[in-house]
Amino acid sequence: MFSATVLTLFPELFPGPLGASILGRGLAEGRWTLDTVNIRDFSDNKYGSVDDTPAGGGPGLVMRADILAAAIDSVSRNDRPVLCLSPRGTPFTQARAQALADGPGVIALCGRFEGVDERIFAARQVEEVSIGDFVLAGGEIGAMALIEACVRLIPAVLGSASSLGEESFEGGLLEYPQYTRPREFDGRAIPEVLLSGDHQKIAQWRRKKAEDITRARRPDLWDAYQKSGPIRSDKNKDETS
Amino acid sequence: MFSATVLTLFPELFPGPLGASILGRGLAEGRWTLDTVNIRDFSDNKYGSVDDTPAGGGPGLVMRADILAAAIDSVSRNDRPVLCLSPRGTPFTQARAQALADGPGVIALCGRFEGVDERIFAARQVEEVSIGDFVLAGGEIGAMALIEACVRLIPAVLGSASSLGEESFEGGLLEYPQYTRPREFDGRAIPEVLLSGDHQKIAQWRRKKAEDITRARRPDLWDAYQKSGPIRSDKNKDETS
Repeated sequence: MFSATVLTLFPELFPGPLGASILGRGLAEGRWTLDTVNIRDFSDNKYGSVDDTPAGGGPGLVMRADILAAAIDSVSRNDRPVLCLSPRGTPFTQARAQALADGPGVIALCGRFEGVDERIFAARQVEEVSIGDFVLAGGEIGAMALIEACVRLIPAVLGSASSLGEESFEGGLLEYPQYTRPREFDGRAIPEVLLSGDHQKIAQWRRKKAEDITRARRPDLWDAYQKSGPIRSDKNKDETS
Repeated sequence: MFSATVLTLFPELFPGPLGASILGRGLAEGRWTLDTVNIRDFSDNKYGSVDDTPAGGGPGLVMRADILAAAIDSVSRNDRPVLCLSPRGTPFTQARAQALADGPGVIALCGRFEGVDERIFAARQVEEVSIGDFVLAGGEIGAMALIEACVRLIPAVLGSASSLGEESFEGGLLEYPQYTRPREFDGRAIPEVLLSGDHQKIAQWRRKKAEDITRARRPDLWDAYQKSGPIRSDKNKDETS
């Protein structure tokens, strides 16, 4: 079973969005687990502080390695990686989400303030991962994104896996455009081909549109796609390769 | 004043993490505003449904353009862009967060299910933006990330802007490593230079480390940095350029 543990100064924010909809139902039904550890519980002083000024000077405060280590050491790792959300980290991808979803779970460390003492990474085998090239006030929203991306891939949570069949990063492309009723909206019609009933033509049109949108919006993904050729994803959906 | 409006099927998830810490204090003090619109309120049927099957077939359900248009039209745009969170979108960056933070705010459209009817984008000038190359169960966590990245840059919210001075994407680099007390942790010492009191040496060491970590972890950022040369960010912090 996939187990997520979040180390945070704001445990009250969880499950938050992870408690909604299909993920929330799966959580209530015990198909995955989520627990939190309040880092402040490992403070060694009466003020409950967990941070101190940066060595070498500079603004803000840095979370102390010894306190973070105590918080991490309080958790049963069970072969789960400890990932620290940080804009300095390795970019988190769909392939990584799938790899984590196939495993025992994840321990997410949420920094606040100016960041965390660098020594924690080597001392406790903590890996920095980034959900995107922007800076947040803390790691909590990133942890929510990471956990949601993983948990929605767990078959027992999703129920029917069918709606995972075609989505962005599938085969290295962004998703084709979707349409539904009404047939005409605001003077705009659903493309004729989608109403033709010709499944082969529809598949060709969608593939072409997925290629067009990927080329236009994401030259980086398009280059990778061009080099590797169209990929038919296997059951394990290693999609971004 | 920066105003965020979120169009969602799960308004109860907000403010959620946006109500914590400095952002939450700024929200309570009226230094930025957040409101939600429940898309379901614009359903045209007694079941409250907002979606229908995809034209051309396929799994899942697509959110209807006419209902989304009604939800968008209910909001005072006030020159705010409508951004739809989607893995197909333009990657959201720190430079975009800064540009939005300098403006009147943002309207975030949160899709669910298989996505939204493509026609809404042109019909209502909705732009798709992506927080990362992974798929979420809905747009809500992405909207939280986008809004948090913007709001933390608003001087009135942050109070003292000093701790924004040095962080990832500043000058096109990832942030240098941070250390704090204790001086020795787990057999690992704080690097000597940081305890030297020599501010010039410390600045050189940090610059070197920021370059090293960017080169090792993000060849894409490193290439851009090499081409543009070190950038001294101005007050508007167009950092990722």
